[in-house]
Amino acid sequence: MNSKEREFDREKIGSIIRAKDVQGAELYLKELPLSERARLLSRLNEADREQLFGLLDAEFSAEIIQSLGEAQSIEILESVDADLAARVIDLVPSDDQADLLSGVDHEVAEQILAAMSPEEAVDARELMKYPWDTAGGMMVTEYLAYRETTTVRDVADDMRSNRDRYANFDIQYVYVIDAEDRLLGVLRLRDLVLARQDERVVTLMIRNPVSVIVTAGLHDLYQLFANHSFLGLPVIGHRGELLGVLERSAVEESMSEEATENYLKVAGLQGNEELRSMALFTRSRRRLSWLSINIVLNVIAASVIAVNQDVLAKVTVLAVFLPIISDMSGCSGNQAIGVSVRELTLGLVKPKELRRVFFKELGVGLMNGFFLGLLVAAAGAIWQSNLWFGAVVGVALMLNTVVAVLIGGLVPLILKRFNMDPALASGPILTTITDMCGFFFVLFFASQILEKLV
Amino acid sequence: MNSKEREFDREKIGSIIRAKDVQGAELYLKELPLSERARLLSRLNEADREQLFGLLDAEFSAEIIQSLGEAQSIEILESVDADLAARVIDLVPSDDQADLLSGVDHEVAEQILAAMSPEEAVDARELMKYPWDTAGGMMVTEYLAYRETTTVRDVADDMRSNRDRYANFDIQYVYVIDAEDRLLGVLRLRDLVLARQDERVVTLMIRNPVSVIVTAGLHDLYQLFANHSFLGLPVIGHRGELLGVLERSAVEESMSEEATENYLKVAGLQGNEELRSMALFTRSRRRLSWLSINIVLNVIAASVIAVNQDVLAKVTVLAVFLPIISDMSGCSGNQAIGVSVRELTLGLVKPKELRRVFFKELGVGLMNGFFLGLLVAAAGAIWQSNLWFGAVVGVALMLNTVVAVLIGGLVPLILKRFNMDPALASGPILTTITDMCGFFFVLFFASQILEKLV
Repeated sequence: MNSKEREFDREKIGSIIRAKDVQGAELYLKELPLSERARLLSRLNEADREQLFGLLDAEFSAEIIQSLGEAQSIEILESVDADLAARVIDLVPSDDQADLLSGVDHEVAEQILAAMSPEEAVDARELMKYPWDTAGGMMVTEYLAYRETTTVRDVADDMRSNRDRYANFDIQYVYVIDAEDRLLGVLRLRDLVLARQDERVVTLMIRNPVSVIVTAGLHDLYQLFANHSFLGLPVIGHRGELLGVLERSAVEESMSEEATENYLKVAGLQGNEELRSMALFTRSRRRLSWLSINIVLNVIAASVIAVNQDVLAKVTVLAVFLPIISDMSGCSGNQAIGVSVRELTLGLVKPKELRRVFFKELGVGLMNGFFLGLLVAAAGAIWQSNLWFGAVVGVALMLNTVVAVLIGGLVPLILKRFNMDPALASGPILTTITDMCGFFFVLFFASQILEKLV
Repeated sequence: MNSKEREFDREKIGSIIRAKDVQGAELYLKELPLSERARLLSRLNEADREQLFGLLDAEFSAEIIQSLGEAQSIEILESVDADLAARVIDLVPSDDQADLLSGVDHEVAEQILAAMSPEEAVDARELMKYPWDTAGGMMVTEYLAYRETTTVRDVADDMRSNRDRYANFDIQYVYVIDAEDRLLGVLRLRDLVLARQDERVVTLMIRNPVSVIVTAGLHDLYQLFANHSFLGLPVIGHRGELLGVLERSAVEESMSEEATENYLKVAGLQGNEELRSMALFTRSRRRLSWLSINIVLNVIAASVIAVNQDVLAKVTVLAVFLPIISDMSGCSGNQAIGVSVRELTLGLVKPKELRRVFFKELGVGLMNGFFLGLLVAAAGAIWQSNLWFGAVVGVALMLNTVVAVLIGGLVPLILKRFNMDPALASGPILTTITDMCGFFFVLFFASQILEKLV
């Protein structure tokens, strides 16, 4: 807890790099708080960054890479020499290896794999085959497995003689396998503490342990861990052979990544994996892809105003209320989307339960629509000294609030039913429809009682 | 992995509840997939839910409560009898006890605490004193600690005789304390496997182990765990006495909770902790609190249109472009907010680095503004067969895109500097300012060349 809020010193690090001061570089980085290390690396240009990593030993470089966010790690691995990247990747845990190599550009990944130590490269290629959201994509291959005839003393001897290699293993369990690597049983480390030295693991182990198949999906795995208190589970192949260990934390991390991604999509914040250290053109292009879709939808919505211009020409003040009604309905609808996406993620609602969501949202829509409509009606009526004017904008907002919460509540369910991503597409669909409806309500009601408004 | 996608059967569970079928209830719930359990519980009315929990033993009830999301657990604990709630809470781990008790209504919490077993209640009250984002608020009090003179054999004997009580402890380390409970050292469980039975823990332990003070904050703790590979750290009080154990997973979970909350706030999705099983009035009120603020900001922004009505009266078609420009600028600005909030959370940018963010955003704003502005200008010019009209709407959108990304990029930094929550306040500030600027640009430019547009 003695990491003071030290900031990095650009000149200091610059002179360390120029002097190729190996010890100085390691010492300097070790003393920086973690977030300052990340910030420093995001500020160096590619040449300096490569030289700096050249000064560090691979172990410390691997530690740094693991402490950074994935987007930043990938950016760095892509920019440094493939040999350097390979030495670093050799040292990170197997599940991170696969994630990082899948994240970098395909050609870069091949170069790094070619430069890695052959066994590590084979393992990494193996893990890269599995999608990130399956047991294979989340498992680690660092585990302890012994044949059934092994004694407790043998296990302790093995652990003693491989102390260094096992140092970073997260050992909770010891696995027992047969001559063909098939999983037979599992022992908790604490059971080894309690056992006699000459006992064989086969007599201590829990037989037929719960295991997961390498292709099992994230949501099933999450349920399994939520239902039971396992810290880790063995992952087996189709022959029953032990392939790796899936840790609870890896599953929880993946679920929370998925949830965060969903929220980002609901918010239309896809630009979010952006780092300001990326090139201007990249950052601009990433953001434009979403903006371009949005502008088309906006034009579609605004066409409702375009075809009703004659009403606006007579009652120009209505133009003041169009953006208010569009924005307020968007907010109401987004709240409903947020609730539906969350309930879908947690499994609290099924995609087919449209009726339930319809009535639940109808209630909220009527109450909030009534309240907001009354507010806007009062403001409009008082400002324009015209009750009819207030009625037009108030009723329009009321109706459109109901429309917005219904669409916001139902669209995620419908998209999910057709196997589309509810988080990504619901927002744009919502705002386009509610804008069109809102503009229509205002201008249509106004056109019906035009003589009362002028 | 054999949990089929079974759905709950409302009639079946209804008849189990009416028949007070204790075995049937447990069997039925155990066979349901986790998400179906959650959905079932969210569909039962309070009376049925209370009767159902009355049929289950406390241990299974505790398991169910832990498998639900926090919002749903709290809803259930508030609705069942305090004695039942107390029996359940007695059985969940200490850090969850404190979280749940802090989450329920204050009066309900007192009733539950009064009904809990006295030792558990004292522990829970102790933990409730610590804010959720400190070491004290995240630690568990389930750990193994032994005096320095204890031998490895004694430890194994103690573990053997308390096998049941320790069954759910997440034992990675064993702690060594002096007669006044002060922390002296720590042993990894695997070191016990490797040790001789008659060795004393004092000779095996790592002295002066890294520990954290009970008041340490989430961000410092996250850095500490990110910098080192500890699975858990001892938490000490100001005298150096051992108070609990902080697990890596608890810190990571809290950080991800904080990040999710931030994204929800950026998106204005505060209605998100809502469950549709809550009462209509509650759901409506939760959503209205945010909508009410939003409507005031909307009225402020729309006032710019109100004071420039004379321009609109002459060129009504401008009203078609006002919502487009407002919405597009909002999108561009929100992207910049997303990037800034994320960079602030990861520590990649300091609140004082306004200059850097200004120039980084200026680049993107100019590029995207130019592209979007050109698009809208072309559309406007062709539609109205008037180059001047295209120029007005195009330049307005271009300038306003620059304004939007600058505000979106900078406001989070400024709010952070004044110790305000950047995620919560940035969005409303952004849309209000960009709406005002956007409306102003369109109507002001139009007023300057009015004769060319009519």
